[in-house]
Amino acid sequence: MTGRVAVLGVGTSHFGRQPEHDLVTLAHAAVTEALADAGDTRIDAVWAGTVFGPPGVTQRVLRACGITGIPVITVENACASGTTAFVEAHEAIRTGRYGRVLALGLEHMSSAFSGAITPEPTDPEQRSGLALPALYAMGAARYLHDGLVTAEQLAAVSVKNHAHALHNPRAQYSGRYTVAEVLGSRMIADPLTVLQCCPTSDGAAAAVLGAAGPEPAVTVRGIALRSGAPWDDRSPHVWGHDVVRDTAADALAAAGLDSVHDLDVVEVHDAFTIGEIVTTEALGIAAPGDGGRLAADGSTALGGVLPVNPSGGLLSRGHPLGATGLAQVAEIVWQLRGLANGRQVDGARLGLVETMGGGVSVLDGNACAVAVLEAP
Amino acid sequence: MTGRVAVLGVGTSHFGRQPEHDLVTLAHAAVTEALADAGDTRIDAVWAGTVFGPPGVTQRVLRACGITGIPVITVENACASGTTAFVEAHEAIRTGRYGRVLALGLEHMSSAFSGAITPEPTDPEQRSGLALPALYAMGAARYLHDGLVTAEQLAAVSVKNHAHALHNPRAQYSGRYTVAEVLGSRMIADPLTVLQCCPTSDGAAAAVLGAAGPEPAVTVRGIALRSGAPWDDRSPHVWGHDVVRDTAADALAAAGLDSVHDLDVVEVHDAFTIGEIVTTEALGIAAPGDGGRLAADGSTALGGVLPVNPSGGLLSRGHPLGATGLAQVAEIVWQLRGLANGRQVDGARLGLVETMGGGVSVLDGNACAVAVLEAP
Repeated sequence: MTGRVAVLGVGTSHFGRQPEHDLVTLAHAAVTEALADAGDTRIDAVWAGTVFGPPGVTQRVLRACGITGIPVITVENACASGTTAFVEAHEAIRTGRYGRVLALGLEHMSSAFSGAITPEPTDPEQRSGLALPALYAMGAARYLHDGLVTAEQLAAVSVKNHAHALHNPRAQYSGRYTVAEVLGSRMIADPLTVLQCCPTSDGAAAAVLGAAGPEPAVTVRGIALRSGAPWDDRSPHVWGHDVVRDTAADALAAAGLDSVHDLDVVEVHDAFTIGEIVTTEALGIAAPGDGGRLAADGSTALGGVLPVNPSGGLLSRGHPLGATGLAQVAEIVWQLRGLANGRQVDGARLGLVETMGGGVSVLDGNACAVAVLEAP
Repeated sequence: MTGRVAVLGVGTSHFGRQPEHDLVTLAHAAVTEALADAGDTRIDAVWAGTVFGPPGVTQRVLRACGITGIPVITVENACASGTTAFVEAHEAIRTGRYGRVLALGLEHMSSAFSGAITPEPTDPEQRSGLALPALYAMGAARYLHDGLVTAEQLAAVSVKNHAHALHNPRAQYSGRYTVAEVLGSRMIADPLTVLQCCPTSDGAAAAVLGAAGPEPAVTVRGIALRSGAPWDDRSPHVWGHDVVRDTAADALAAAGLDSVHDLDVVEVHDAFTIGEIVTTEALGIAAPGDGGRLAADGSTALGGVLPVNPSGGLLSRGHPLGATGLAQVAEIVWQLRGLANGRQVDGARLGLVETMGGGVSVLDGNACAVAVLEAP
């Protein structure tokens, strides 16, 4: 371990289904904002995360940003691709491999699919029905059956995150919904209705990392990456719980934090409402079986004890797969600098980002990245 | 820089157009051979390179290999994807991030395309005709026009590499061709005939890396990665030359070598015959305009001064994009251990791997990785 790594600048595109804007346009918006925010356009290397971006896409968008002639590595790690790029950029700064690194996440789902993610022909589980909505729905059904959550508590996550997004002008969706409206919206995978599922999104997000110096900056206090564990049917927990728990434990230990209750704000992977509930429990923010209550009683809302997904989360800000992790990083950086406007968590000093990806073949092993960021 | 990094084991599948074997089967062959060669199945993390492998493919093939629950990062860097995985694995060992890392390359081109690589809809240059065969053909035409090579010298690269592959039982193609036969084969992109173009290949290759210890092992003496430079029209050289020259200079400097003439054997990116000629010149193995002569007079053949592509190279061993770099690494490791059988370069002590990728959008910036390996 050498010195602390700083996040010197962040930027994002607007998020939404925006086929009229290609990846070059979206990434240009994110990169130019991040470079301007960092106050210096010097970049020594780039890590980029995308799931369905075509080969060579990173070089193509960087050329449009005027970034050429430096090492560029594109990574794929399912929904955690953008956060994996952030982890790798962090490592390159930490070890002194490069002085200033751009971490970029980008995804254009509306050109990759006509609707939901199409299962790979080589993926027998998804083709037999275990696509991601079905997988999360199984977790939700299990939680309902075991009395660990109510349908109303599941819906409350959607109500909360859509309300948060009212204060985020870059969010794909927002709105003041009632629990009844969420439960009454179109069924996607029982018990998950459409307002409980993240949308198809196009977008990009970026961060500039460098060694922390005398200038005040948000720094990375702890970071961890795990992946590759297939669903362990010996675990008593639903899919996704254990890898989040273990990765978060790594990151919190690296950050020297005894408790998640030291955190002021978190952005977690709420691809579906049940995802946020399971994740808050896996992180230790909620006791087992208590995640739904915290979402419903305002504890994890803006103004609550520990706001979760003030940006609106994947459910409302949107979920452009490879861009999501860096969109989460951008939100936490803005929160820690006091720049989050109407969704600002007052006095936020410590924030956490958690992204969990299931691969496309969900049973083959998920990936999880967790970072703890600290205010200047 | 901490300690020297060792390549503890290597393995590959057979290379060829083999739609009857999926990526899981091919990768399993490469990984199990590499782990057995390393004499220890412990792996702490995996970097994998693929260009057209579907999202999640790495986790899927690793699950079949019994490798789960550890960090997995899949990288894309055009034809240099496998070598990029090797560079990243090397860096993780060098910095002590992980103790033992698997670098894996994998590609199943026959399931990704019905024939040649299909240009991306978002790639205007390739769609207007600047696909890779055309781009290399422009370089060859320029060389012919400027008197830097003859058609017969171009063909001699194919004759040499197909003859080398006669001694490589894993090669996709091999044969004793004459220069006239090469020149008389079907024209693909004038002046490059089909025997001067690498084939569509399926395959996988792997290496296990760890810290060099008291046991004798092949070690990495120097390594470098560059990418992102679009074709510089101010350069007097053809496409690809400059990034190879600069990356090789980095790697040779890191290896503390004054001259490429200290090398005993090299594997370079001969995706097309002109590619090997330009690369030998960019590396300094041949003087400018002298690469063709060295290929034609036997200097770069087995038994010559500095054998180039004893495996048969991309032209004959095959070019499964993401697997190629690690197939090159495997060949050099076998050469440095004296295990290359009929294609062994006697007493080889120092070997070099060079891989150059053009992105899919060839003008957006190519990637190059170069490694210098040393015998135990």
